[in-house]
Amino acid sequence: MTTITEVTVHDVRFPTAASGDGSDAINRGDYSATYVELSTDGGPTGAGFTFTNGRGNEITCAAVRALRHHVVGRRVEEITAEPVAFWRSLAADVQLRWLGPEKGVIHMATGALVNAVWDLRAKLAGKPMWRYLAELPTDELVANVDFTHITDALTTEEAAAILDKGRDGLTDRLGLLERDGFPSYTTSVGWLGYPDDKVLALTRAAYAQGWRAMKMKVGGPPADDLRRARIIRAVIGPDALLMMDANQVWDVDEAITNMTALAEVDPYWIEEPTHADDILGHARIARAMSELTGGRCRVATGEVAANKVIFKQLLQAEAIGVMQIDACRVGGVNEVLAEILMAAKFGVPICPHAGGVGLCEYVQHLAIFDYLRVGTSLEGRMIEYVDHLHEHFVDPVRTRDGRYLLPTAPGYSATMHPSSIATFRFPDGPAWR
Amino acid sequence: MTTITEVTVHDVRFPTAASGDGSDAINRGDYSATYVELSTDGGPTGAGFTFTNGRGNEITCAAVRALRHHVVGRRVEEITAEPVAFWRSLAADVQLRWLGPEKGVIHMATGALVNAVWDLRAKLAGKPMWRYLAELPTDELVANVDFTHITDALTTEEAAAILDKGRDGLTDRLGLLERDGFPSYTTSVGWLGYPDDKVLALTRAAYAQGWRAMKMKVGGPPADDLRRARIIRAVIGPDALLMMDANQVWDVDEAITNMTALAEVDPYWIEEPTHADDILGHARIARAMSELTGGRCRVATGEVAANKVIFKQLLQAEAIGVMQIDACRVGGVNEVLAEILMAAKFGVPICPHAGGVGLCEYVQHLAIFDYLRVGTSLEGRMIEYVDHLHEHFVDPVRTRDGRYLLPTAPGYSATMHPSSIATFRFPDGPAWR
Repeated sequence: MTTITEVTVHDVRFPTAASGDGSDAINRGDYSATYVELSTDGGPTGAGFTFTNGRGNEITCAAVRALRHHVVGRRVEEITAEPVAFWRSLAADVQLRWLGPEKGVIHMATGALVNAVWDLRAKLAGKPMWRYLAELPTDELVANVDFTHITDALTTEEAAAILDKGRDGLTDRLGLLERDGFPSYTTSVGWLGYPDDKVLALTRAAYAQGWRAMKMKVGGPPADDLRRARIIRAVIGPDALLMMDANQVWDVDEAITNMTALAEVDPYWIEEPTHADDILGHARIARAMSELTGGRCRVATGEVAANKVIFKQLLQAEAIGVMQIDACRVGGVNEVLAEILMAAKFGVPICPHAGGVGLCEYVQHLAIFDYLRVGTSLEGRMIEYVDHLHEHFVDPVRTRDGRYLLPTAPGYSATMHPSSIATFRFPDGPAWR
Repeated sequence: MTTITEVTVHDVRFPTAASGDGSDAINRGDYSATYVELSTDGGPTGAGFTFTNGRGNEITCAAVRALRHHVVGRRVEEITAEPVAFWRSLAADVQLRWLGPEKGVIHMATGALVNAVWDLRAKLAGKPMWRYLAELPTDELVANVDFTHITDALTTEEAAAILDKGRDGLTDRLGLLERDGFPSYTTSVGWLGYPDDKVLALTRAAYAQGWRAMKMKVGGPPADDLRRARIIRAVIGPDALLMMDANQVWDVDEAITNMTALAEVDPYWIEEPTHADDILGHARIARAMSELTGGRCRVATGEVAANKVIFKQLLQAEAIGVMQIDACRVGGVNEVLAEILMAAKFGVPICPHAGGVGLCEYVQHLAIFDYLRVGTSLEGRMIEYVDHLHEHFVDPVRTRDGRYLLPTAPGYSATMHPSSIATFRFPDGPAWR
């Protein structure tokens, strides 16, 4: 038996805002982590975090402390035996639920804690998270999903059938990933804060490194967006994929107008064309883009989709052609499992959101599990890749020729170097003093 | 000129959980307020708050502190001249927005601050908030609305036309309210924590006091819900309105099944039948209930609708027949104005959410303004009333025969007695030590 004896939370912030890295139509942040350590009585330390954008990281830290009493003193084996009861003790706390429900600060803090418990589970099993998940029996995986509020889209029986079917050919799929790695795309070429010559140089460098799918930020003045898009398309040629990300800056009709102009450069998807909560708006934009491009340009979203109920509706309304799950915006692995299973039911491929701090480290496990056991196809599947801040992690992502290599260390790759925590702890670390 | 010189935030909590007051299918709280005071250089003090359910009130307090720098040092007259720019400085902060966007903790803190500024504006004008709003010229009211992300449902021109039309007959409507007060309903009879005999006694007492519309909580075992509903209906007779509130506990199909059974007692509305984010689910339930009851039973929601984008979709999808705006869940008066105007455009009556701490004090102003200048009809309009904690406010609500009387003091009725703040401040006030 392994008991969680303490929850420690660190406010870790990296000063990225000054350089323009990560700048887009609506965010300009100091990439930060609400970093959680679960101490145990003799077992490994569980690590988890939620990503934030700088200011306000102290608020998610406060939310972790408010949820702490649901975690300290719990035995990992008891949580594993009744995982939904544990998950709901956090997500449906009778007083804290009011602050969400299941959204924003309180849900991101839930995600940090839940993910740290999963890191502990995988470390105790001696497996990287993707393998731990992929090798769980169907009934155990299903028992980790809270079907509350999603039974109109996915039943327990449907989930079990998807996971059972996912056992067929799993060994072959694993062999393919071991040989080739997992497809990915890069977002590092076209942040809004970068001037044209930097975009050109970065695009050329990325193409030379083997990337054949690249994402640019849009949502600035439309003429600027088109000029930058042409620069990138000219370098990568007609066959490589060019994705666009508006970070919610447009109204619904504005999104349709602006994407009609940008259709010239054959975008593969438009990401976050309008407010993240606007399911009906995304559905309208998806219909318009599908008609305009004969189905070539799809709508993608997810990095700030607050919870499984939002994802359920995006699927039900046929609002998205790509589902961008996030590892820590929602309530951790348990909720992501629900989302991955719903995507499979509705036949929508998953391309996880990454970047920030440690998101690449997290989501590689989820995408690999999805391919191995749920989605079972690489068609349309890519993991976002941003080359920032990996050096702070004990088990950083590794890529080769634009593909993620399989993680091998036990756990969820969420553990940071103690020296990075000490240096970038806010406000007292040397980087901030 | 009046400058805001300081923002002070108090964590005020009332120990209500022990008595079962306010208990429902999903919440059991200590009614609390993240209470904000805006000091000025010689002018009045602005007061605002957001309501929380106990644990976690320190998180919304931390969020107010994170937003503080957007408010301190601002001149009230400058804010009034460019109100959307001020609103967006809080709601679209390039780093803090990530914690929402526009939802949960960070948006509730925005609401507390924005409402405190409005309290200051009304106090400086020497008018109660309802009158201050109702007497503003159309162009000034429109200038206070951020139409970002809602132009597909309501344009500036449509809003202006509604507000211009609302001038007709305003004096007559005001005369009616001065004579009769504003209709309301009571939620105090049927909390889930109350035993049957207490429900019976409270219903009889409320009926004797003049209440002809009452709300009960549902979402317990279906047989218990029906038994309690029959007790209330038997006391109030067939003509009084009986509303039901499930506080999101049901799945979509479960809601339809359970409400089919409860239709026996002729409910006027079912409130929060499923998860607050489930626009498509609410729409399905609304269609089912309308077909089952020939349009008698409608769906209501709003107390945890995160923002104007959620309300927009609830209206577009015809998911609600009653819109329950909340004064401080969303980003304060500016955002509520958008919601009230959208409701008028779509022809859905507003019955604000109240109860908790100070929500009755807040929303009476909004409902009165809506009737006077926007909705212009009392048909289907009622303000929720719960007889809790009014004694802590300097300008508490006053009711007569189940109707709210018009507030007369300048401001937004949000100011608490200093002695109440001192006594119930958490964790150091005498009530908590």
